[in-house]
Amino acid sequence: MSNYELILLRHGESEWNAKNLFTGWVDVRLSAAGEAEAARGGKMLAERNLLPDVVHTSLLRRAIHTSQLALDACDRHWIPVHRSWRLNERHYGALQGKDKKETLAKYGEEQFKLWRRSFDVPPPPIEANDPYSQVQDARYADLGPDLPATECLKDVVARMAPYWEESIIPDLKAGKRTLITAHGNSLRALVMHLDGISESDIAELNIPTGIPLFYKLNEEFKPVTPGGEYLDPVAARAAIQAVANQGKR
Amino acid sequence: MSNYELILLRHGESEWNAKNLFTGWVDVRLSAAGEAEAARGGKMLAERNLLPDVVHTSLLRRAIHTSQLALDACDRHWIPVHRSWRLNERHYGALQGKDKKETLAKYGEEQFKLWRRSFDVPPPPIEANDPYSQVQDARYADLGPDLPATECLKDVVARMAPYWEESIIPDLKAGKRTLITAHGNSLRALVMHLDGISESDIAELNIPTGIPLFYKLNEEFKPVTPGGEYLDPVAARAAIQAVANQGKR
Repeated sequence: MSNYELILLRHGESEWNAKNLFTGWVDVRLSAAGEAEAARGGKMLAERNLLPDVVHTSLLRRAIHTSQLALDACDRHWIPVHRSWRLNERHYGALQGKDKKETLAKYGEEQFKLWRRSFDVPPPPIEANDPYSQVQDARYADLGPDLPATECLKDVVARMAPYWEESIIPDLKAGKRTLITAHGNSLRALVMHLDGISESDIAELNIPTGIPLFYKLNEEFKPVTPGGEYLDPVAARAAIQAVANQGKR
Repeated sequence: MSNYELILLRHGESEWNAKNLFTGWVDVRLSAAGEAEAARGGKMLAERNLLPDVVHTSLLRRAIHTSQLALDACDRHWIPVHRSWRLNERHYGALQGKDKKETLAKYGEEQFKLWRRSFDVPPPPIEANDPYSQVQDARYADLGPDLPATECLKDVVARMAPYWEESIIPDLKAGKRTLITAHGNSLRALVMHLDGISESDIAELNIPTGIPLFYKLNEEFKPVTPGGEYLDPVAARAAIQAVANQGKR
C-alpha cells in the first residue's frame, strides 16, 4: 500500500518572538514577518503539489492564522479544520510574559536552559491571578483540572499523544494528506514520538518556523525517512542554527 | 427553557461585486472594503456580547475569509469550524463571469429579473469546459452528479435544507450560539425557511452584507421575533435599499 502523508508547519514569527518574551499560552499575534512566512510555507506546498486534505491546529491565534494564510496561498482554504488545546505551545508557567534575556540574567544559564530545554523540569506554575494566566479564558473552560499552570516537554508529550492517536491517525488512515500547524514544543513532542528521539537528544532538536516538514509514514505510522524532509532544506538548516542561538547572550 | 441563538452574516463586498459581475460559485476574493465589513461585523458581535460558539461557512473564500476576519475581531478565532457546499452561493450557471449590466442590456429587464429574483427559473446551465465551471474543482470532487451546472433559488432551498437539519440544528440543540457566514442567496433560502416567507414574497427580500442578523429561535427552531434583528438596523435599512437597486440601469 502507499504511504501516509503528514506535513508539520511551525508558526512564523509572532509579536512576542520579535520582542524576545516567553509566550507559551499567551495568545499573541503573528508579526508581519510571521504572516509572510506562513504564506511562503503555503506556496512551498503548492510548488511541491503537496496540497493538504485536512488541517489540525492549536487553539492559539498564531497557529490558526498560520494555517489560514498557508492554506489560502495554496488554494486549500476550504479544507476541513480541527483544533485542539492538545496542540498548543508548551505552557511556560510563571515565565509567560517575561523577557528571555532578563530571565537568563536573573536565574543563570543552567536554570534557563533547564526550563527551556530539559525534558522534565517545568518552570514555576503561573498564579491564577497573573495577567498571563488562562484561568479565565473561555476556550479552556471545559478543561477543568486538566488546565495546566506550567508544563515541561514531558507534559506536552503526554497531552499531545491522545490527540495523535484519536484525531490525527484516523485522518491519515482515511488517506488524507494531513497538515498540522502548531508550535515549537508541541511539534518537538510529536517529532520525538515519530522519530523515536530519546529524552536526552530531544534537547538539541530545533524545528524552524514557516518551512513545511514533510513525512511519509509507513503502516505503523513511523517515518519512512527518519527526520522527514524540509521542503526548503537550505533555509531549514540556517533557521535551525538561529533557533539554537536564541536566548544566548 | 431559554431560546436557541443563531447569527447570520452575509460576506462583504468581493472583487466581483465591485466589478458588477455574476459570481455564483466562482471563488473570488473579498475586496479591501469587504474585509473591513467582515471585521466590523465581528466587532458588532463583541459589542453586543453575542460571541459565537461555533461557525458554519460555505466552501467559498469570500465567506471563509469573512468568518475568519469577523471571528478574529471578536476574539473567537479558536471556535470549531464546519464548512459545506450546501451553504454556497446560488450557482449562476452560464451567467457566471458575465457583466450584470451587459446581461441586463442583452436579455432585457424581465428575463434579467427572472434569473436574479424568481424562485424557480434558473439561468442556462454552464458548459463543463467553461473557464468558470467547477467541474475540475477538487473541493467538489465528492459531489458527483449533485454538482450543479445552474441553480434557481428553489434548488438552493432544497440543497440547503438537509444541512440545516443535520448539521446546524444539532449545534443549536447543544446550546451553541451558532454563526453562519454565507451568501446572499443561501441566506435568503435559510431566512425563507425560518420566517416562512412565500415563493412570491422572497423575491423582494434582500440581506445586507456585513451586518450580523440575530435570531432567537423557539423550541421548534422558528424565530421568536419574525425577521430577526440586525445588529445595526439603520445601516441594514440603507444597505437593503442599495441591494434592491443593484443591476438597475
